[in-house]
Amino acid sequence: MQLILNDPLDMHLHLRDGEMLHTTAPLSAHSFSGAIIMPNTIPPIQSKEALLSYKQRILEAMGSENFMPLMTLFFRRDYDYEFLSNIRDELSAIKLYPAGITTNSEGGVSGFDIEKLKTPLEAMSELGIPLCIHGETNGFVMDREAEFVPIYEKLAAAFPKLKIIMEHITTKESLQALDRYENLYATITVHHLLITLDDVVGGMLRPHLFCKPIAKRGEDRDALVQAAVNAHPKVMFGSDSAPHPKSAKECPGCAAGIFTAPIALPLLAELFEAHGKLDNLQGFISDHAKKIYGIKPPKKSVILKKEPFTIPKNYGDIVPMHAGETISWKISQVQ
Amino acid sequence: MQLILNDPLDMHLHLRDGEMLHTTAPLSAHSFSGAIIMPNTIPPIQSKEALLSYKQRILEAMGSENFMPLMTLFFRRDYDYEFLSNIRDELSAIKLYPAGITTNSEGGVSGFDIEKLKTPLEAMSELGIPLCIHGETNGFVMDREAEFVPIYEKLAAAFPKLKIIMEHITTKESLQALDRYENLYATITVHHLLITLDDVVGGMLRPHLFCKPIAKRGEDRDALVQAAVNAHPKVMFGSDSAPHPKSAKECPGCAAGIFTAPIALPLLAELFEAHGKLDNLQGFISDHAKKIYGIKPPKKSVILKKEPFTIPKNYGDIVPMHAGETISWKISQVQ
Repeated sequence: MQLILNDPLDMHLHLRDGEMLHTTAPLSAHSFSGAIIMPNTIPPIQSKEALLSYKQRILEAMGSENFMPLMTLFFRRDYDYEFLSNIRDELSAIKLYPAGITTNSEGGVSGFDIEKLKTPLEAMSELGIPLCIHGETNGFVMDREAEFVPIYEKLAAAFPKLKIIMEHITTKESLQALDRYENLYATITVHHLLITLDDVVGGMLRPHLFCKPIAKRGEDRDALVQAAVNAHPKVMFGSDSAPHPKSAKECPGCAAGIFTAPIALPLLAELFEAHGKLDNLQGFISDHAKKIYGIKPPKKSVILKKEPFTIPKNYGDIVPMHAGETISWKISQVQ
Repeated sequence: MQLILNDPLDMHLHLRDGEMLHTTAPLSAHSFSGAIIMPNTIPPIQSKEALLSYKQRILEAMGSENFMPLMTLFFRRDYDYEFLSNIRDELSAIKLYPAGITTNSEGGVSGFDIEKLKTPLEAMSELGIPLCIHGETNGFVMDREAEFVPIYEKLAAAFPKLKIIMEHITTKESLQALDRYENLYATITVHHLLITLDDVVGGMLRPHLFCKPIAKRGEDRDALVQAAVNAHPKVMFGSDSAPHPKSAKECPGCAAGIFTAPIALPLLAELFEAHGKLDNLQGFISDHAKKIYGIKPPKKSVILKKEPFTIPKNYGDIVPMHAGETISWKISQVQ
């Protein structure tokens, strides 16, 4: 059995920078046609100059692959129309982090007063720049995302022309909000389609399954799976693949992030097949995103085969999700 | 400021065996007068011979300290009156683990059919042997303890003369059950009085704060604190101090257990003082347990002083809770 995916897109990707970029960029560029590149590097990407220079480093690191890095800025309240129109052609989205909520988000937003957000969000509405949000409050870890839903709704109502992407959603509450506002969209990771909090802390503690937002309950995971495999048109794949060196994952204070970029497509094929919905993977992995973002990534066909594939124990210094485990699909050819 | 604690007791302690015992036994024996020694060694303690031999190893390892190891058996359904009456004088309690629920519990109980538990539990009732239970189902990690409450209640109702100790409780549901049945009692750890799930997975992932049962919500922690600092007479201190070598805590699949034995008394003094309830620590740390278990441990006075104390980064190969952090009380003298 084989499956051909056309122009797979990863609508939420962390490539990092420096040495690690030389491991991550070729891996994503190999099996994806394009990806939204998150801007929470050190320092974060907050200027045209920084964005172009980061894009150049990605292009150099990814080798000869046919891949489109879709660049983003780290949201700031002082972005105005003039600044954004000047960078528009290079920009695919802007990512908003609540302050301190995840890796390198210290410079994020610490309040959601509509008045204080008007200048950048009205400019983005006019220029058609989507706003990607890491939607968590600083409340109790299992409640943070559900507590953020009213903020999503407030923003969606106040800026009806702004496309707001609820990033890496993990709860049924977020899914319900999607359908209440026309201008809300969502990405879902592959790991949140597969694991729950039980996989992270229910048996042994699994640092390589630790991420933000944390995986939730079975009923949340099941609701996400239903949206994905049934091709909810406002839902896109975004891996949130977030590499850290092994030493930052197996230690007294481990960083949040799961590395899935090179194995996401086989894992998704396995999941969609298990639900008898292989035909719907094309929408989740590319078509919905093309429509929502209005993008035309380079043509790429990824051929997956149903053959046993053992996930590598590491990619350089990075341990992937399910390292060493064997799954039932593999990437057979990319053309 | 100083505080004298008389005959402190740790009513739930894992000393392990072999090499590690030489680190753990002297540390607990130094600041406690006695401790309930959990039997989930490899292999578990299930015979008089194994119990006496383990006790001997503990006595040898603990050095010249004045300390009473209160020995327990690993529960089995085939323990009968004859077996138990023969071991009664050496036995302080029997510990029941649901199968597979925590470290070395594979041989535990996999059902709570009253008929199948009658032989050992009636014998224990007659012989006055308390039953200590790790009360978790194999459900979702945040629900396991609350789901087990009906089993506690079923056992308490079916065996009204049996003293049942709800071990290391972490939820308000368990506290509520305590007051519904005369023969239910509970231990609480120091870590469950201090942390919530947020401390384990809410920021960085903290493997040295990972334990079973997992720390729960703030409202649960607060309810436990109220019971402890207000000297609930059915509530005893049990550290559940559960050492693992550092290599088993900082790795891809980390073992459950927090090591607190040598720092529990200063941590408790700090907590009880913060609540203006220092006077109630004597009950929580010793008096309630003496009465519930009917035991007379060796006389020991532990003098704590309010002075800064930096928790060691390690005790041998074991990393304690809050390693390297400075707290406001220390053990000044033991006599």
